[in-house]
Amino acid sequence: MATLKDVAQETGLTVSTVSRVLNNRGYISDETRKNVYSAMKKLNYHPNEVARSLSKKSTNTIGVIVPHIRHPYFAELISNLENEAYHHKLKILLFNSQDKDEREREYLDMCTSNRVSGVIICSGNVALKEFSGLNVPLITIERYLENGTATVECDNFQGGKLAALHLIEQGCTNLIHLSGVNEHAMPADQRAFGFVETCIKHGVSHQEFATSAFQYNSLEYHEFIEKVLLDNPHVDGIFASSDLIAAQLLQVCAKKSIKIPDQLKIVGFDDVNIAALTTPPITTIHQPIKEMSKVAIELLLSAGEGNMVPNRTILPVTLVKRETT
Amino acid sequence: MATLKDVAQETGLTVSTVSRVLNNRGYISDETRKNVYSAMKKLNYHPNEVARSLSKKSTNTIGVIVPHIRHPYFAELISNLENEAYHHKLKILLFNSQDKDEREREYLDMCTSNRVSGVIICSGNVALKEFSGLNVPLITIERYLENGTATVECDNFQGGKLAALHLIEQGCTNLIHLSGVNEHAMPADQRAFGFVETCIKHGVSHQEFATSAFQYNSLEYHEFIEKVLLDNPHVDGIFASSDLIAAQLLQVCAKKSIKIPDQLKIVGFDDVNIAALTTPPITTIHQPIKEMSKVAIELLLSAGEGNMVPNRTILPVTLVKRETT
Repeated sequence: MATLKDVAQETGLTVSTVSRVLNNRGYISDETRKNVYSAMKKLNYHPNEVARSLSKKSTNTIGVIVPHIRHPYFAELISNLENEAYHHKLKILLFNSQDKDEREREYLDMCTSNRVSGVIICSGNVALKEFSGLNVPLITIERYLENGTATVECDNFQGGKLAALHLIEQGCTNLIHLSGVNEHAMPADQRAFGFVETCIKHGVSHQEFATSAFQYNSLEYHEFIEKVLLDNPHVDGIFASSDLIAAQLLQVCAKKSIKIPDQLKIVGFDDVNIAALTTPPITTIHQPIKEMSKVAIELLLSAGEGNMVPNRTILPVTLVKRETT
Repeated sequence: MATLKDVAQETGLTVSTVSRVLNNRGYISDETRKNVYSAMKKLNYHPNEVARSLSKKSTNTIGVIVPHIRHPYFAELISNLENEAYHHKLKILLFNSQDKDEREREYLDMCTSNRVSGVIICSGNVALKEFSGLNVPLITIERYLENGTATVECDNFQGGKLAALHLIEQGCTNLIHLSGVNEHAMPADQRAFGFVETCIKHGVSHQEFATSAFQYNSLEYHEFIEKVLLDNPHVDGIFASSDLIAAQLLQVCAKKSIKIPDQLKIVGFDDVNIAALTTPPITTIHQPIKEMSKVAIELLLSAGEGNMVPNRTILPVTLVKRETT
């Protein structure tokens, strides 16, 4: 592999002049700069970013820890985070915790040892003390940590409200909410609160059934859904806390010959690709994942510059009407 | 942040002894080792992996370049690659090329500058000469590069054969294949060959319609599918080259009141989560993504040790029967 010395030899300049060009330090004529870059190209020289990182004490890398890459919500989120990072000349080190404490801890250690410039965590099992050792900015997305780390959220409460309101406006009188995992407090819990408050306000009968961590980790809800439908034959509107659950609800309904939306109306949450790919496509609450990713990266950079960042940043949601209502 | 010196002070050992413990060099008593590790924990000391990388000339990081993170196939692949990497104590730097030449090139430069231990590329637009400058092992998954880089593939030809055979066995006599993008030669092209060969062998009428790069990049096939169905009202069996296309085909059929599987039978390809989440769920060809990821990482490591690796490694596929046939 070509070295800095080779570039110096090729251009007839000194190593320190070439180094000044690369680091944009001091006065360099346009001609010299051009010579250096064309020699670099000719020799296929790539500056060693590892060495530069060491001296700059910054790796331009951020660690992203998610519980499940293959969950369509996180796939969409990672895709948007990568795109935002690219525009800030940052690289993404991706870690999949599988929602396991031990792996989250290991990944946080790896982030620290590899001197990442910041960490975005979307998986929230690790206890407070694990984070106090992290000397880089940390932002969570749709997760709370006990120590009050800055969180980027969508307006989950408003989402629950919009879902309930839409089902009520469509004539539903017997509502059910299939809610998320309840073991840790998280922003998504607000979906249920918004839903319940709206049902009470409109005097509409409602129930909530919580899914389990096991279901969340296996992405498998069919059995749970079947039981809910069996126990509640008079339900005419369901608000599912993810499009993934809503897609599986559609499958169970097809099996039981429950006609959607005639006999049962469904609203999902997230608005990820699966919502637009089912038959019929799912009416859902749109999370502004692109904007949330943009804000998360910007907050991380701002915190890295020593600025105070808001504890919570809540972005608006909208109802996307498709064919399940 | 605690330093090596702090650990030395805490333990009463010299810096060089502590360093020997960390690098597992020379004879160290169990007691000394224990003392060092407990001091590290107490002081929350993390060895600087950036500095270690520089001296070891290895970063234990691999670059993964995909065209679309949010495509369910790549989300599944990334998830499996991350898991395999984790078991080899490797980290993943993730890059989303959006199938753009320029971004692929930039990402390859970043991989080189950041001294990754290897690159896995699942996005194949970059011309031969871009790769000759890459001094680390490179493995492609389901892509060919002009210079004959080692590829991990599934048995696409067999997949096309299995799909056609299954549709014929189910009584279809008028088959269509919705094939992938045809601008670059890629392993997936073999799906069409296996399909056509089987149709000819069984004397079954068949046609192939190729999707475009624009459709691939926007993940949007509805209009294309509508036209194919309109122009071919007598089709009774369709083999789609991805589950994503098959899911959208289901939606178009619902709109046109074409009953699945009574009037039209459908086989997808990939067996990613979307195939099991549609209504009805999709009969498809299973790509062994987990095993392909495992092999890709192992080949990368083996190539890094200077071993010869096979140009092509082809893993078997299977038919997964669900409810569209």
